[in-house]
Amino acid sequence: MTSYRKALPGHFYAVGVGPGAADLLTLRAARIIETADLIISPQAQGSARSLALEAVRPLLKEQQVLCASYPMERNGQATRARWQQLADTACEQCAAGRSVVQITLGDPLIFATSSYLLQSLGDRLPTGHCHIVPGISAFQTGASRFGEALTLQEDRLTLMSASDLDAVAEALDHCETLVLYKAGGVIEQLLEILAERRLLGASRLISCAEQGAHELIVDSLEGWRPGRLNYMTTLIVRVGSRHWRETGR
Amino acid sequence: MTSYRKALPGHFYAVGVGPGAADLLTLRAARIIETADLIISPQAQGSARSLALEAVRPLLKEQQVLCASYPMERNGQATRARWQQLADTACEQCAAGRSVVQITLGDPLIFATSSYLLQSLGDRLPTGHCHIVPGISAFQTGASRFGEALTLQEDRLTLMSASDLDAVAEALDHCETLVLYKAGGVIEQLLEILAERRLLGASRLISCAEQGAHELIVDSLEGWRPGRLNYMTTLIVRVGSRHWRETGR
Repeated sequence: MTSYRKALPGHFYAVGVGPGAADLLTLRAARIIETADLIISPQAQGSARSLALEAVRPLLKEQQVLCASYPMERNGQATRARWQQLADTACEQCAAGRSVVQITLGDPLIFATSSYLLQSLGDRLPTGHCHIVPGISAFQTGASRFGEALTLQEDRLTLMSASDLDAVAEALDHCETLVLYKAGGVIEQLLEILAERRLLGASRLISCAEQGAHELIVDSLEGWRPGRLNYMTTLIVRVGSRHWRETGR
Repeated sequence: MTSYRKALPGHFYAVGVGPGAADLLTLRAARIIETADLIISPQAQGSARSLALEAVRPLLKEQQVLCASYPMERNGQATRARWQQLADTACEQCAAGRSVVQITLGDPLIFATSSYLLQSLGDRLPTGHCHIVPGISAFQTGASRFGEALTLQEDRLTLMSASDLDAVAEALDHCETLVLYKAGGVIEQLLEILAERRLLGASRLISCAEQGAHELIVDSLEGWRPGRLNYMTTLIVRVGSRHWRETGR
């Protein structure tokens, strides 16, 4: 049952490292990172540091680390081209018998750079040679600081980017808990939408969760005035709740 | 930055242990469980084993373990009464200077028993004495086995219980990825809804993920006929995708 697996030669691993704290990786993620030959650490162009790399620093010894910058643009073509290059590198290294890990903040399949690399890899590796290790996503870290359930009984939880404001307003009608990623750039507009629906008191904000002095936690947006916010800002809106029909079973 | 925290005397921890594999806990969860005085392990009445307890067994040494059965009923009153008792126990033990952990499968705030205990605890512990350690939820484990992104760009991801079929049908109109928990008991009805919308090929099923021989993985529901399914069955439906408006920024 217990399997503290090592990274295998010729295998690729997309590994979620969680929100940025060194102890919020899984044991599996830590073990695979510790035993890998090559660690690919993506970094948005222009950003000063890779949070994912900082989170795994205590696990780095002999591994080669490749810091791979990628364009932080809402441009599908440039994004795909860059990730295709990184997929080529990963495939070449695996073909040479090395174990390759791409680390990513949060979970590799939830608004994550890993998803692009995985798409570009496609079927280029032998069957069973591509692995995904899930990680704690920002909304889970955020929620853990507030202590209120995200979902119980028949509640619906929706996660989305905050950037399409019409879609945000619509989503409030179709879930009990709404999580908005990337809320920093549109916070004024979001406050308006939430105020109109009298949801400011049911809305919480967390920015740079588990990132030490950078962390900002706001327990209620009622009466709160935003300053300059980081890109990695998450809102959690508790819209309502749906209970079981009480059947006794 | 690195903080491998021990469980503190008089503190309570709701700890998510992930899907059931001993290496899918976070390092923080493992450290807190290892150093706690009392572990409360909830178990549904009538179930033969506690998966959460099995997942943490390699971490158990001197800790006292309290297996606490609770009614598996869709009955809010009985559920609340039982969790109130457990909250009393947790408070008494904390007041006596012990560190208390409640373990829960998955994440403590996503369809989890921990949420009831946290509600019952309310403000009974001193400020800052109640902690939540997030865990890998079943939908993340499931998705990691299929390798397709849950969300990219402007996608909306919705998580809900499969039990309210009208709500399931409605949710398919308002998200790009729909995750249905507790799908085992209504699988025939779900297959009908998905077939009507020609979504069987875009639907995947995972049951007892990371639970060894109990695990069932179905990559596409097209042409698949269900046998008897476990309660812990998750469907992942990829309804569509929403891309960025391409602005170059």
